[in-house]
Amino acid sequence: MSFLRITYQIQASAHEIESRAAGVAVEQSVEMPIPAIRHPHVLEEIVGQVESIRPVGENLFNVVIRLAAATTGVDAVTGAVDVAQLVNMLFGNSSLQESVQLIDMELPQSILDAFSGPRLGIAGLRELVQAPQRPLTCTAIKPQGIAPADLAALCHTFALGGIDIIKDDHGLANQTYAPFAERVRACHAAVERANRATGLRTYYCPNVAGSPKQLFEQARMAREEGVSIIMAAPMLMGLPVFYELLQEHWSDAVLAHPAFAGAARISPVLLFGKLFRLLGADAVIYPNYGGRFTYSQPLCADLAATARAPWGHIQPILPVPAGGMTVERVPEMVNFYGADTMLLIGGGLLTAGDALLARSREFVRTVANS
Amino acid sequence: MSFLRITYQIQASAHEIESRAAGVAVEQSVEMPIPAIRHPHVLEEIVGQVESIRPVGENLFNVVIRLAAATTGVDAVTGAVDVAQLVNMLFGNSSLQESVQLIDMELPQSILDAFSGPRLGIAGLRELVQAPQRPLTCTAIKPQGIAPADLAALCHTFALGGIDIIKDDHGLANQTYAPFAERVRACHAAVERANRATGLRTYYCPNVAGSPKQLFEQARMAREEGVSIIMAAPMLMGLPVFYELLQEHWSDAVLAHPAFAGAARISPVLLFGKLFRLLGADAVIYPNYGGRFTYSQPLCADLAATARAPWGHIQPILPVPAGGMTVERVPEMVNFYGADTMLLIGGGLLTAGDALLARSREFVRTVANS
Repeated sequence: MSFLRITYQIQASAHEIESRAAGVAVEQSVEMPIPAIRHPHVLEEIVGQVESIRPVGENLFNVVIRLAAATTGVDAVTGAVDVAQLVNMLFGNSSLQESVQLIDMELPQSILDAFSGPRLGIAGLRELVQAPQRPLTCTAIKPQGIAPADLAALCHTFALGGIDIIKDDHGLANQTYAPFAERVRACHAAVERANRATGLRTYYCPNVAGSPKQLFEQARMAREEGVSIIMAAPMLMGLPVFYELLQEHWSDAVLAHPAFAGAARISPVLLFGKLFRLLGADAVIYPNYGGRFTYSQPLCADLAATARAPWGHIQPILPVPAGGMTVERVPEMVNFYGADTMLLIGGGLLTAGDALLARSREFVRTVANS
Repeated sequence: MSFLRITYQIQASAHEIESRAAGVAVEQSVEMPIPAIRHPHVLEEIVGQVESIRPVGENLFNVVIRLAAATTGVDAVTGAVDVAQLVNMLFGNSSLQESVQLIDMELPQSILDAFSGPRLGIAGLRELVQAPQRPLTCTAIKPQGIAPADLAALCHTFALGGIDIIKDDHGLANQTYAPFAERVRACHAAVERANRATGLRTYYCPNVAGSPKQLFEQARMAREEGVSIIMAAPMLMGLPVFYELLQEHWSDAVLAHPAFAGAARISPVLLFGKLFRLLGADAVIYPNYGGRFTYSQPLCADLAATARAPWGHIQPILPVPAGGMTVERVPEMVNFYGADTMLLIGGGLLTAGDALLARSREFVRTVANS
């Protein structure tokens, strides 16, 4: 038998915590009264076990619960991978308990070996953009509502500025004002044209989105256009779809977007740093401290460290702190995150108006010199 | 132009709320500094507009924001439906703001008309189980870890007891101890056998789960076995997958399960009562008050009322309050929820041990007499 060890943070008083922890262990495994279980092997192996309870604050405890790997439907020996069921075992019903947060997971070898994780990871992305050491640069084309030609013009300017990756705004789907096929063709061509002028390797990164059928078709179109990196929002499409996309419909680089991740009830460190990575993201966008979102500096440091930390055969991935960043903040961010980072500035470039090319070049230069 | 009206609950001080509301309107639409927008039609139509701000508690406001329907990629005229993008517009980036909660949505006709919603709804489910007036009954087979023959034996007993719908535990996926195909064949046959003995119409309801490919194949297998109702967890598989499943791979009844819905940041009333319904659930399981979960009585009343409320051409659906319910609570629940309800008792039956058939009959009888 092999087991997962899952950490939940539970709000409870000191005299309640033991029964609360036992309750979560049951909820996340057999979900029925223990005395009614008639099969000894279920009691011994399948029922979740509380391994430890550790106080971490006032009326706040970290509880480690052991769950049988067999319940997840993931097994390296048979090659079975059921992402939905893995997530179900991690946080299915307990996600409905307001006082329970999913903090961390420790996977047994039998599960970890069933995943290949990111294909490129940090090393592959560095090779792709030919930047062996410095932080990578990224920007976004927006606003939604403008036509493919306008988006392509932005791509061209950003590419002339030498930014590594130019991604779609996550609001760009397949709307009538900029349909996916037309947008991708125009934007990719614009970047290629700029690359021929500069001799640099800038990449256009389209956002694939929609139902499984729609997004698998979009991945096919992107591949046919010659695109090398796509963006995808795992929580918006569903984690199992994200995995199937990378397993069967896309074999190059992937940038994960946090839309709909509402990570307050799942530790962002686990969700972005481990779960997105396990399923195959090569780089992961998340809200940086001091921007439009409320993530703290220690949380961001922890998230970035987790994304890059050694984890069996699963490659490290690039943290992409974002959300209201500016060129002025680049030196501080590079100082904080170091070089294995992709800096993403969108609106902070677009405010330059006619000076967009100059601002883009300043971004690239500042990163190179930081 | 047509517009969505989305209600967010925002924690902020009275002097901050206007700028916070404006911030959410921008975040959920163009996600860039307004002065940098150069296209007048984007400023006029695409940028989100704050329509109203209403205090609802100390430092707590309900903010209604207007978003252009064109941004959602859903349009009844063209027939386009992009569920991922609709959800993205409702709560993409703002889900990452801890102080913002998604409360409600008002859809324009152009979006509502693009959805057909549940096929059966309350009326169709009542016809299916031949119960024109009383509340419906439901139970679950568990624990996970036992073999198909053991699960089928439970099905047989419950069906002899006359329960309307016998669903898989949501932890039953495609694990080696009870693979989907074998389990569904055994359980469906056991129920049919009992139906022949009783002359009643009890239904076995398998849980379809996994990646799109896996679960679409499971839906096909269920259909081939003669199954009439499936259970699916929309948040676990991804909302766009849930929709594609019901559009293209399943044309009968559907029971929605709340696993991974972690609805603290989305109003459960909206998520279960409207969003799951819009996409096609005929009945929706949620944690009842006074059980293992923390939902309040007013919240549950609101959720049930919303699930059944008139909503254009979208059929009303059955609320299925659950989570630690017992036969003893049936009269109180029927009194609270009325007859357009399905009562789901799982563990509360299984604790009966050898008296399982008697307890099941008591459940059915109590509902009939309440």
